[in-house]
Amino acid sequence: MTYERPNITRLTPYTPGEQPAGTPTDRSQPPIIKLNTNENPYPPAQPVLDAIRNVSPDALRRYPPPTASAFRQAAADAHNLTPDHIIATNGGDELLRLAITVYCEPRGTYNNTDSPPVGWDKRSASHQSQSPTPGAGIGITDPTYSLYEVLAAIHNTPITRMPLNDDFSIPDDYPDRLNAANARLALIVNPHAPSGRLQPINQLADFAQRFNGILLIDEAYTDFAESNALELLDPARNLTNVLLLRTLSKGYSLAGLRFGYGLAHPTIITTLNKAKDSYNTDALAQAAAVAALQSRDHAAKTWQAVTAERTRLTDRLTDLGHRVHPSQSNFLLTTPTTNAKTLYQNLKAANILVRYFDHPRLTDKLRITVGTPDENNQLLNALEKLQ
Amino acid sequence: MTYERPNITRLTPYTPGEQPAGTPTDRSQPPIIKLNTNENPYPPAQPVLDAIRNVSPDALRRYPPPTASAFRQAAADAHNLTPDHIIATNGGDELLRLAITVYCEPRGTYNNTDSPPVGWDKRSASHQSQSPTPGAGIGITDPTYSLYEVLAAIHNTPITRMPLNDDFSIPDDYPDRLNAANARLALIVNPHAPSGRLQPINQLADFAQRFNGILLIDEAYTDFAESNALELLDPARNLTNVLLLRTLSKGYSLAGLRFGYGLAHPTIITTLNKAKDSYNTDALAQAAAVAALQSRDHAAKTWQAVTAERTRLTDRLTDLGHRVHPSQSNFLLTTPTTNAKTLYQNLKAANILVRYFDHPRLTDKLRITVGTPDENNQLLNALEKLQ
Repeated sequence: MTYERPNITRLTPYTPGEQPAGTPTDRSQPPIIKLNTNENPYPPAQPVLDAIRNVSPDALRRYPPPTASAFRQAAADAHNLTPDHIIATNGGDELLRLAITVYCEPRGTYNNTDSPPVGWDKRSASHQSQSPTPGAGIGITDPTYSLYEVLAAIHNTPITRMPLNDDFSIPDDYPDRLNAANARLALIVNPHAPSGRLQPINQLADFAQRFNGILLIDEAYTDFAESNALELLDPARNLTNVLLLRTLSKGYSLAGLRFGYGLAHPTIITTLNKAKDSYNTDALAQAAAVAALQSRDHAAKTWQAVTAERTRLTDRLTDLGHRVHPSQSNFLLTTPTTNAKTLYQNLKAANILVRYFDHPRLTDKLRITVGTPDENNQLLNALEKLQ
Repeated sequence: MTYERPNITRLTPYTPGEQPAGTPTDRSQPPIIKLNTNENPYPPAQPVLDAIRNVSPDALRRYPPPTASAFRQAAADAHNLTPDHIIATNGGDELLRLAITVYCEPRGTYNNTDSPPVGWDKRSASHQSQSPTPGAGIGITDPTYSLYEVLAAIHNTPITRMPLNDDFSIPDDYPDRLNAANARLALIVNPHAPSGRLQPINQLADFAQRFNGILLIDEAYTDFAESNALELLDPARNLTNVLLLRTLSKGYSLAGLRFGYGLAHPTIITTLNKAKDSYNTDALAQAAAVAALQSRDHAAKTWQAVTAERTRLTDRLTDLGHRVHPSQSNFLLTTPTTNAKTLYQNLKAANILVRYFDHPRLTDKLRITVGTPDENNQLLNALEKLQ
């Protein structure tokens, strides 16, 4: 017997990048060069480790502050906002799920075994479960971060896809198309994944003005870019439909901590707070996250190191004949001279993990996380031999 | 302009128990006796603290194991099951939300401003948004853990409420009523909150046999009870619709860590895994949770201390004229001789926090967490003066 909703039965879950079990210091495993999940190659700041090691038994024993008040104050200080502009989440992923939960209507299909509600038309129910319902759902670009579609499918909300231009820029009529489809939430990852392209902030501001729903700008990689969309929250702009996603996973070397946050007009934050799990972030992560934001100088040095290596890696890959998309992120989308999938497999056999996407427009490309100079050199040496 | 779904606009969010900012060692605050949120009064085991303090920078820098494989093995060892019977979650709350997401259909109302889908009948849409849709939702007892209703309201799924008997036992026709309402998921907290009553395991087994949906038994407080429902997962019973919720928050003194887990037939675990956030538990919490399960003996001593104090507190409250419900949990539901709300407020003024529920059948009662002997003595002394 199947108990779950039909959309869950149909669902293809998100596939995270491979996480080999061994650590770099695990001598029982061959050393793996891990350039597949966009982690920061440098460790987090010492005060972050200290905050974790100094946690009190009482902080573990008791429920954590439900809205992470100390963190929200630290984030407010960092971004020159007030804490009511900020929500802390269990990784950026939770913020994405919350936004979909709060703003997007599910289709409301019923199991075949369920009694239909009064007034329910079988023909229309069948129509709804088979084809996308117009309106009420999310808008995404194509390609984009593949989790967005999975989260929409779990919620069973319609998806409107906007093909990006050849250079991965966003067509100017995107908000018009979203409005025509009656989308309630648009998700734009900026810098773009998997290309690394930075969409112009003025274009995003224009989109926010013209779009009738909430514009979520996923700034997971913003620390490696030359600009961000924070200015859209300037009160003078009066944009009450902009939600920025930030995470400590990449910029602050804390992917293992699961800590993200949202920045938006307080009306948005209040709404998201109503739907979050009551204690969504734990005491350790809150303490570490405060220390991370207060150690921004340490993190900024890692951003400089990564962006310098990004330039060098772009040049060297170009020397090897690759077409490399200009990136403002901590990864490169590159078109090698040989079959991308084969090259991915050969690199993996040589203990170098990069990311291959079996997705239209991406099958001839690899996404490579920028590593340390040594890791990048090992990748380049392997590529010289393999391609 | 309102962007969110109407059910979110209407939502009254969950109210966590008060969490005073000061810690017991914070001398700038008056000492607070905190008996309001059912935390364990004793600290977690030393190996848990060691696991946290020994975390490597690399474990923080990298994404955590997505399904908490080491923890699932430790839980499998602890419960004599295989890891495919186990899902780790960000507190028990996440497991509740996942189960509702996966098994219950939302009503699928649409904003008034949205274009209705093809074939959509306005009259039926209006009906759906106003009154509960028959079927497809959750079944709960009344009273129960108040979060259940909030999670159902966020998902916008129908709720079937079953009033408990006067002694907080569950009427035997509960599964029949759930089936008649076509509920897909029944939530039973056992030991019951807020009464502390342990429902007989045989009755739960019978319910699972007769109920057409998933029976989630929330065993958040099971460590303080004389029996639990683990035997329902015995393969010989062939129950593929039972999901047990466990948490480290109470029994293992780790409410600040946010770590819970589900135990069920592998078909249920596979389904829940499809809908969870991709990295739902963090590296620190996973390491601490493994250490906690492996330090069960330490935790068991705290359970003994709490249950001994539960007996003493029950006796002393009875001496003071209270009617105390027999409890198999780490809290007591008690009917004082004076107005409960006034007594709650007077205790709070004396820096003693207990829980008062403004809910039918509970307005003359207080829920008191069992504390240390010293905390309980201070409570008893205050009650002698105040009531």
